[in-house]
Amino acid sequence: MGLGARISAPFVFWAFAMRVALGLEYRGTAYCGWQSQSSGCGVQDYVEKAVAAFLGEPARVICAGRTDTGVHATAQVVHLDTLLARPVQAWVRGVNSFLPPDIRILWAHFLPEPAECREEERFHARFSAISRRYCYRLVDRAVAPGIEHGLVGWFHAPLDLDRMQAAAHLLLGEKDFSAFRSAECQAKSPVKVMQAVRVFREGTTLIFDLRASAFLHHMVRNIVGCLVYVGAGRQDADWFAAVIASKDRARCAPTFSPDGLYLVGVEYDGRWMLPAFPVRGVAAEGGQND
Amino acid sequence: MGLGARISAPFVFWAFAMRVALGLEYRGTAYCGWQSQSSGCGVQDYVEKAVAAFLGEPARVICAGRTDTGVHATAQVVHLDTLLARPVQAWVRGVNSFLPPDIRILWAHFLPEPAECREEERFHARFSAISRRYCYRLVDRAVAPGIEHGLVGWFHAPLDLDRMQAAAHLLLGEKDFSAFRSAECQAKSPVKVMQAVRVFREGTTLIFDLRASAFLHHMVRNIVGCLVYVGAGRQDADWFAAVIASKDRARCAPTFSPDGLYLVGVEYDGRWMLPAFPVRGVAAEGGQND
Repeated sequence: MGLGARISAPFVFWAFAMRVALGLEYRGTAYCGWQSQSSGCGVQDYVEKAVAAFLGEPARVICAGRTDTGVHATAQVVHLDTLLARPVQAWVRGVNSFLPPDIRILWAHFLPEPAECREEERFHARFSAISRRYCYRLVDRAVAPGIEHGLVGWFHAPLDLDRMQAAAHLLLGEKDFSAFRSAECQAKSPVKVMQAVRVFREGTTLIFDLRASAFLHHMVRNIVGCLVYVGAGRQDADWFAAVIASKDRARCAPTFSPDGLYLVGVEYDGRWMLPAFPVRGVAAEGGQND
Repeated sequence: MGLGARISAPFVFWAFAMRVALGLEYRGTAYCGWQSQSSGCGVQDYVEKAVAAFLGEPARVICAGRTDTGVHATAQVVHLDTLLARPVQAWVRGVNSFLPPDIRILWAHFLPEPAECREEERFHARFSAISRRYCYRLVDRAVAPGIEHGLVGWFHAPLDLDRMQAAAHLLLGEKDFSAFRSAECQAKSPVKVMQAVRVFREGTTLIFDLRASAFLHHMVRNIVGCLVYVGAGRQDADWFAAVIASKDRARCAPTFSPDGLYLVGVEYDGRWMLPAFPVRGVAAEGGQND
């Protein structure tokens, strides 16, 4: 499959830079977010170092969703350009061999390029994305989770699912989400389209499952903070509607912990033929094409 | 509830040592197993230090199941004796405040003591246990799990569930399990009663769920190693039956990784009135009374 598999030589120089997409998952606990940092603690730093070690040349990758410190991804997508050709399976095994075990390349894919290719027609992990999907996993019980420490959010008292579902429904549609936007947010516009929202229990874990055209900085964690207020009976759905309408971050509840947040899907046009992510429990359900 | 809650003074000396049971969960990744080590790296070392800090006196705890390095527990039970009385909720909050976040006390319980109490009539976390239940979680896919690194076992190719179920069924009943016993095993007898065995998928994770009167050292990991051989088509159920019958460790497959192993239940007589463990997904299903 793909161009690489038909190449028997260990590597080949292309006449033009080949665009490669990589699908990856990572546990964000040990990293200071996706983005490259001068200290080298970003997931991006590790991925770029591993790709560079694999290719034997410097690499720069661009991702679909820049996750924060402590935030995880089951379905991150990145792209990069290279003049070197390698078979797809070599990409997966090779790059993984240079990565820490909590970051894994799940697939590699060579993007088809039109004969006369203008930059804006090429696949771009960030700009080609049609929508993103995040899941927040939260345990509501007296004692903080030990086994899942760092992998789920926690609230010390039981939360009312019905109340949270009723409030969460108010997020649907095209809205100005400024009330949930952090001061550091770099998005051009606070107006996004919330396409799907589900709040449900999986065993004793609460799942907040949100899909939108794009998300503002801290948006899911601020939404979860407000929904926890509603679920705990401290506020109601009318208050939540007023928070949304206010467009005022000061009205919103505190930002919830990053521990339970997962980037679980990025949707692209079918013409890119990106491989599906393996379904790992409900968090990854639907993959990038949900 | 219990004796402690009726006591308003911060602590009281009992006329006799009070026996306290604690239910706990832990992620075993960072520890060298349950058992106390001179280097202090055992889960037991951390629990004893935390209990001692809470009580202000040295503490020694005895557990139901001595888990190995890297093995987890959703439902470990320990007991200890103390002359100091504290309310049950103070035990949970107090001891947890001295523990690392990947070890959590889930409940505390004061054991009822008969008026004329002989040692063998008292609750004992290890000797009073009627059965133990372990779950092994395993992901079978090309790429090793990143987010769940250390929390699940991994096999690089798809495993056939039907073949493994047929073989696992052969474990049921009273048998000499010497074929799955490590050289370091200290059990008096290799004969144990396997009471229940289930192999199933939860999403894409394979679960091996075993309940027995007791387990030998490395028994679950050796059984999983053999069942993986069967699931991969490398051996069949007849071979597995021959391995069991041989009582010969040399016939068995290599010991599987500790990463996916969880102590998920310890069964005691109902007269001890131990609290239930919170159900955390399928691994904890049924708690100690399954």
